[in-house]
Amino acid sequence: MSLNISGNTHFFDDVYIVAVATTAGKVESSGPLKNYFDKRYPDHHLGYDSYELAEMKMLEDALTIAREKVNLNASDIQLYIGGDLNNQLTSSHYVARLLPSPMYGVYSACATLGQSIQLASLLVSSGHIKNSQVFVSSHNATAERQFRYPNEYGIKKRDTSTFTATGGVSVILDKTPSMVRIESITIGRVIDMQQKNVNDMGRAMAPAAFDTLKQHLLDTKRKGTYYDLIITGDLSTYGKKIMQELIIKENIEVNEYTDCGCLLYSDCQDVNMGGSGPTCSGLVTFGYLYKKMCQGIYKRILVLPTGALLSPVMVNQKQSIPCVSHAFCLEVVQ
Amino acid sequence: MSLNISGNTHFFDDVYIVAVATTAGKVESSGPLKNYFDKRYPDHHLGYDSYELAEMKMLEDALTIAREKVNLNASDIQLYIGGDLNNQLTSSHYVARLLPSPMYGVYSACATLGQSIQLASLLVSSGHIKNSQVFVSSHNATAERQFRYPNEYGIKKRDTSTFTATGGVSVILDKTPSMVRIESITIGRVIDMQQKNVNDMGRAMAPAAFDTLKQHLLDTKRKGTYYDLIITGDLSTYGKKIMQELIIKENIEVNEYTDCGCLLYSDCQDVNMGGSGPTCSGLVTFGYLYKKMCQGIYKRILVLPTGALLSPVMVNQKQSIPCVSHAFCLEVVQ
Repeated sequence: MSLNISGNTHFFDDVYIVAVATTAGKVESSGPLKNYFDKRYPDHHLGYDSYELAEMKMLEDALTIAREKVNLNASDIQLYIGGDLNNQLTSSHYVARLLPSPMYGVYSACATLGQSIQLASLLVSSGHIKNSQVFVSSHNATAERQFRYPNEYGIKKRDTSTFTATGGVSVILDKTPSMVRIESITIGRVIDMQQKNVNDMGRAMAPAAFDTLKQHLLDTKRKGTYYDLIITGDLSTYGKKIMQELIIKENIEVNEYTDCGCLLYSDCQDVNMGGSGPTCSGLVTFGYLYKKMCQGIYKRILVLPTGALLSPVMVNQKQSIPCVSHAFCLEVVQ
Repeated sequence: MSLNISGNTHFFDDVYIVAVATTAGKVESSGPLKNYFDKRYPDHHLGYDSYELAEMKMLEDALTIAREKVNLNASDIQLYIGGDLNNQLTSSHYVARLLPSPMYGVYSACATLGQSIQLASLLVSSGHIKNSQVFVSSHNATAERQFRYPNEYGIKKRDTSTFTATGGVSVILDKTPSMVRIESITIGRVIDMQQKNVNDMGRAMAPAAFDTLKQHLLDTKRKGTYYDLIITGDLSTYGKKIMQELIIKENIEVNEYTDCGCLLYSDCQDVNMGGSGPTCSGLVTFGYLYKKMCQGIYKRILVLPTGALLSPVMVNQKQSIPCVSHAFCLEVVQ
């Protein structure tokens, strides 16, 4: 490890993606990226008695598939790092019961994938751990029930609502050279622009994503055009527009900017403004974009997973919604 | 940094406790340790409209007091790491809006203090960050409402119930030599012994604490008597008995073993089996024991914060309770 740090950004020359796995729910498996996922499920409950148990199965599958790709047993992983949207990180902790190695549970809502990748990169690079398996999961039915209303109530969605993606995502990191590496990370600050609308997460999160983007470009002394693609996590159609306006307003030039929530589904799917949830950025980044990088189509991508640190209790108390974005840069190894 | 790792245990020679701060609720401020806390509150709401807002104030006070002790501004801290018991880490994230530096939210229930101290130690030791302010909070009224019933319902507690401590705890770590250092950490595995009784957390958590203790002694090749004191987080009276039985059964000799939940309150206080919550182990460890170490009364203490990764949703689905314990060793600098 050679330390290379600037502001809130850490650079690595020895953290590689060894394996990725994605498992996708029924709506995601009917979308334009369906052929990029390792496993697709035909329904939301998979024969289990509850949606939570189904979500755990999707997460467990993602963990197992990633390890099987590189012939690793569960005990070969030195540290598991991950989280999910359920209170008390239910899916993560219940799946972790099956794991023989230590586990850190982390939470930054839909930015949990970013935080997990960051922590794993820092600990692998420093040599404190030899490898780490990172994971996230989310499930449309568990998230909607917890944060808003059970889908079964059939409540009409607002125009600015997003659709929590269903499935599991897992990434194994270590120092073994591979095709794609984590080149840098920028740790995000908690940003609150006093947005209180629980049905408009894109508007709430865009300023946090932009704060981390600006910090990243400042720390790295890079232009936006350094990246083939800059992609946010789950701002979706409406939040993406706000992010684009911020980018233009501050004269940041980019080759391509889009949002994972705008890629996961097609326009004819009934998902309001597009995808959200930690699985949304995970499926798009490590299902779709990772394979495009392996094919040489993208060489450098800056991923900005975005999290609305929304609490239904605080929303009921008329409080605003703090947000965060933890970024990582994926780079094809030359 | 010189890497020294054995199993799930990491050793440090350069991570020091620079400052600690503790803020305590009204019941904790009436207990036997009341004179050890930096700030004491006369009631549970502090004039705020909700218990959550009061908890945030207690956490904010703990953060500010710790920094003031060593003349640090909020922006002098490079990375904040912490969590609390509220869903979505509400207290932590809402307080983090006020902080100008990045923040990682972590969750391992009442073991969150252990996980935060561990992550900060790993990142400070590796040089990735120059300092970190670690924090936890909990509040009896917010936790009881969320996990069981609002206190206002007046529901009779079970004999094996514990009492969630109220207040905030903060610790600043960096490489500046001080009186007490983090000598080692042992990262815990998620352990589930199929305990399902939501009113008996001690029984659920004791096996996780014991698993981490055994791993720590195995990794360090130490006897239990290496430590002046081995202390668990919040097993309280009943869980402490189970832990003692496990220690005796496996022939582990110890100089002194006790539980933070048994020290925070006096027998005449109405707290059932004793204290729990991340603030319980925090107030006892960094309010009381830390000062005893500075006075030379203890030289080496192994702290095993314990977390029941309890989810009311999964308890309602008749699922058992996974638990975890993330340990750290405090050592007086010679």
